[in-house]
Amino acid sequence: MKLVIVGGVAGGASAAARARRLSEDCEIVMFERGADPSFANCGMPYYVGGKIDGRQKLLVTSRERLKSRYRVDVRTHSRVERIDREKKVVHVHDTRRDRQYEEPYDKLILATGASPLRPPLEGIDLPGIHTLRDLRDADQLHTAATRGAKSAVIVGAGFIGMEMAENLQRRGLEVTVVELTDQILPPWDREMTTDVARYARSQGIRLHLGDAAARFRQSDGQLFVELRSGDVLKAGFVVLCIGVKPESQLAVEAGIECGVRGGVRTNAAMQTSDLDIYAVGDVAEVSDVVSGQPTQVPLAGPANRQGRLAADHIFGRAVGYRGTQGTAIVGIFERTVAMTGLSEKLLLRLGIPCQKIYIHAGHHAGYYPGAERLTLKLLFSPEDGKILGAQASGGAGVDKRIDVLAMAIQAGMTVYDLEEAELCYAPQFGAAKDPVNMAGFVAAGVLRGDQPVIHVPELETLTSTGAVLLDVRTLDEFEAGYIPSARHVPLDDLRTRLGELPAGERIIPYCQVGQRGYMATRILLQQGFEAANLSGGFTTWRQFHDA
Amino acid sequence: MKLVIVGGVAGGASAAARARRLSEDCEIVMFERGADPSFANCGMPYYVGGKIDGRQKLLVTSRERLKSRYRVDVRTHSRVERIDREKKVVHVHDTRRDRQYEEPYDKLILATGASPLRPPLEGIDLPGIHTLRDLRDADQLHTAATRGAKSAVIVGAGFIGMEMAENLQRRGLEVTVVELTDQILPPWDREMTTDVARYARSQGIRLHLGDAAARFRQSDGQLFVELRSGDVLKAGFVVLCIGVKPESQLAVEAGIECGVRGGVRTNAAMQTSDLDIYAVGDVAEVSDVVSGQPTQVPLAGPANRQGRLAADHIFGRAVGYRGTQGTAIVGIFERTVAMTGLSEKLLLRLGIPCQKIYIHAGHHAGYYPGAERLTLKLLFSPEDGKILGAQASGGAGVDKRIDVLAMAIQAGMTVYDLEEAELCYAPQFGAAKDPVNMAGFVAAGVLRGDQPVIHVPELETLTSTGAVLLDVRTLDEFEAGYIPSARHVPLDDLRTRLGELPAGERIIPYCQVGQRGYMATRILLQQGFEAANLSGGFTTWRQFHDA
Repeated sequence: MKLVIVGGVAGGASAAARARRLSEDCEIVMFERGADPSFANCGMPYYVGGKIDGRQKLLVTSRERLKSRYRVDVRTHSRVERIDREKKVVHVHDTRRDRQYEEPYDKLILATGASPLRPPLEGIDLPGIHTLRDLRDADQLHTAATRGAKSAVIVGAGFIGMEMAENLQRRGLEVTVVELTDQILPPWDREMTTDVARYARSQGIRLHLGDAAARFRQSDGQLFVELRSGDVLKAGFVVLCIGVKPESQLAVEAGIECGVRGGVRTNAAMQTSDLDIYAVGDVAEVSDVVSGQPTQVPLAGPANRQGRLAADHIFGRAVGYRGTQGTAIVGIFERTVAMTGLSEKLLLRLGIPCQKIYIHAGHHAGYYPGAERLTLKLLFSPEDGKILGAQASGGAGVDKRIDVLAMAIQAGMTVYDLEEAELCYAPQFGAAKDPVNMAGFVAAGVLRGDQPVIHVPELETLTSTGAVLLDVRTLDEFEAGYIPSARHVPLDDLRTRLGELPAGERIIPYCQVGQRGYMATRILLQQGFEAANLSGGFTTWRQFHDA
Repeated sequence: MKLVIVGGVAGGASAAARARRLSEDCEIVMFERGADPSFANCGMPYYVGGKIDGRQKLLVTSRERLKSRYRVDVRTHSRVERIDREKKVVHVHDTRRDRQYEEPYDKLILATGASPLRPPLEGIDLPGIHTLRDLRDADQLHTAATRGAKSAVIVGAGFIGMEMAENLQRRGLEVTVVELTDQILPPWDREMTTDVARYARSQGIRLHLGDAAARFRQSDGQLFVELRSGDVLKAGFVVLCIGVKPESQLAVEAGIECGVRGGVRTNAAMQTSDLDIYAVGDVAEVSDVVSGQPTQVPLAGPANRQGRLAADHIFGRAVGYRGTQGTAIVGIFERTVAMTGLSEKLLLRLGIPCQKIYIHAGHHAGYYPGAERLTLKLLFSPEDGKILGAQASGGAGVDKRIDVLAMAIQAGMTVYDLEEAELCYAPQFGAAKDPVNMAGFVAAGVLRGDQPVIHVPELETLTSTGAVLLDVRTLDEFEAGYIPSARHVPLDDLRTRLGELPAGERIIPYCQVGQRGYMATRILLQQGFEAANLSGGFTTWRQFHDA
């Protein structure tokens, strides 16, 4: 058996190591067009920013290690230029020796990754316009960030854009981020990103949301970014982080089936339409766990897993890739945002019915010092309560709750299961009712009809047609800021002041985070009012009103 | 409907609040024999130690709040002395007014908790011998710790004993812990506690393991603890933390069915053998999720959940308590130990077949600064890979992995599912192959036969009958310490030095944490040797050899 792997980062390296563990006999050849076979690409922004102090830390494994331990014939500086499926050979260009040759394969794994998009804008090829894909890019950015540049413009506020923003700011640069959509971190629902955007601004990052680079120009040695809005930004250098496209050209040219977004179609064994050719990692189109739809998820975890599975299948194991769930996390300064499953906007786009709730809770018991607030948004089926997605924002403990909910989605669990979850509790780690339980209680309460909820975007229509918005917080809280048009009746006075509320109108109680609003809703419902709690209360209202 | 609740802490308070949310009409009377209805008992050691600076922070909710918001008639200083099931009344002793009266109920919830064991030892009633159950106890310990005592002896090294040890040491006291078994934290398997025991010792805690208090005596105003071993410890004061027993006397005297360990038997609706009487929290006997056996778990999370469920059932909801999983965590200085499901020793005792593996991994990617090592022990069914239990020890990230595995157990997932788990990965939060995935890979590899493992306790027998222990680490690692009788062949030389190994003997490779040992095992198996990896490698060996 001769296994040829194109690309040596996450998916390719995993496939190679796994293949060797399964077979001492097979021949494994790995082609990597760069200088390093396997590197930690998720660490590159932190190397640029100096948090990871030393390039060598990014070298996950060396060519020598792959050779001595796994007996992988690693050929760096080697570009695979064509697949001849008839002859079962790849055409290779050894760029260092400028030599062309054919290499036969029995099985071929494409782990070519995805490349950063470079839109065809005027001036896009000017010096000082960077992307971040491999270590050479990271080296160039490292140099640019540490040798005199005073400012940087980042185009695109996704994961890498925001990580770069933090890291360049750490280097003392003045950082501006330009983003086409009206939010940072477009995979998340907008309201789950506003706290982090505010925080990033407080740290000195300038955000131009709802704007885009229109052209780049240089005058007197100075680079300028002209935006669609007409604004012009001076830039020591530019980093393009507007997304990636699967590097599937090899497959396309070989007549292998690709999806509409350019990824190589795969089955549950990671095989392409040519069953001797596998695709893994960012180049592969896979299916989404929740929707069952084709998707492209450029994340390291799934890439590693797919590489391992491809090797398993090649050596005769029964495998079935369950699809990708889209679990993702990003740290921006002291803030963390994470998600798993589908976002609300994606569910809407796919026409999948969903209900949602918000909770705000400490990441551990409030009576123990140091609790940090986290916000959790839970998306679930209104029919059976099945969890469809979750997003969290906050500081400590965000990663834990999303990992717990990632398991729940993997297991097909419902919001009722979250009520029953038994999680770690000691005061410095959690709460007797963990935020995950709380989310379950609230969501299950909505489905059981105990707690009808309405959401911030519906408020205006509802109040304009007679619904009464009722602030049930204390007077101090109310006076510190309230939702326009709200009346004020503190929760503990509600039972005795019910007469002040108009009979026949819908009442929408709200409090700071939703808990007192829930109690108010229960009282009102039992007294014959039509009532629905504003999910997440004033805190969620502010997430939507960040301007 | 008149609901009477005996006991106002976790389970009782949850039941009261839930009952009110479900019914504005019902009458709720809550009896609490102490001065405070609901307090954060998990926080008491930290109040004693000064980490929580102020007693009022432990008061989760006040009598006034319960009255004004939930309309609960809270009667503190009120001891329920008898249940008359025929008349459906409880006999109450108002200890402040020294008044006796009857209070009728339609439904009764027993949330009386559990009380610390006080063994009938000589001198047990001397002044200065404390237990920690309620705020009055905490106040007394707070006073003892801050007013001149120079030393404390803690009897029992469970959760509370070890938390007290840390907190009294924080107050500057010399702390000695005496524990009957040969380990701290008896609910965990011993080897999972040795690192923490070592760490606690390094922080100045004296541990007397495998010993017990025999008698207490006072001479010249000084308290002494005499141990079974004959050792005598001087003690400024003593804290007894040897366990709790369900406070089920009320139920027993009323002829309600109790389990062998004294807990009140409950069904899935938390009803006792008298269907109008419910038991929740530490007083209740519940079933264990994994074994299905009756169990008593004095933990706050389950207590809250049970209180809520009892109220649900009383107000006509269909409920079913799924049982208790035993998820628990304890922080001791900078170390954390957590578990979920059953321990190995409990599985053995119950005769439930189990296999196990150990992994040691960073809590996040190693290339990002600050990764802390964590050890994970996974217990699973050798038949179908179902997860039966998990234990972790380390620093940061221990709580997250156990919570993830708690969800896996709740969902009935297998080790194969852990291979597929898609968890948060950015370098500061996790790894492309999270420790949970790694545990899944290793365990699944064992079940698939890819990676036979042997465990440290089997080593001696195996090597004495001819098996060869093979250290495959580097020479530097080997010379820094190795397992007695091991031969040394570094992994990268193994393929060329196979001739040095005796054919026909079982080879047991090991490395630092198990990963290179796995590769060595794969090579050996494919070359026709009988081989099995030492799970967890040298690091796990040291967990077993802590003396």
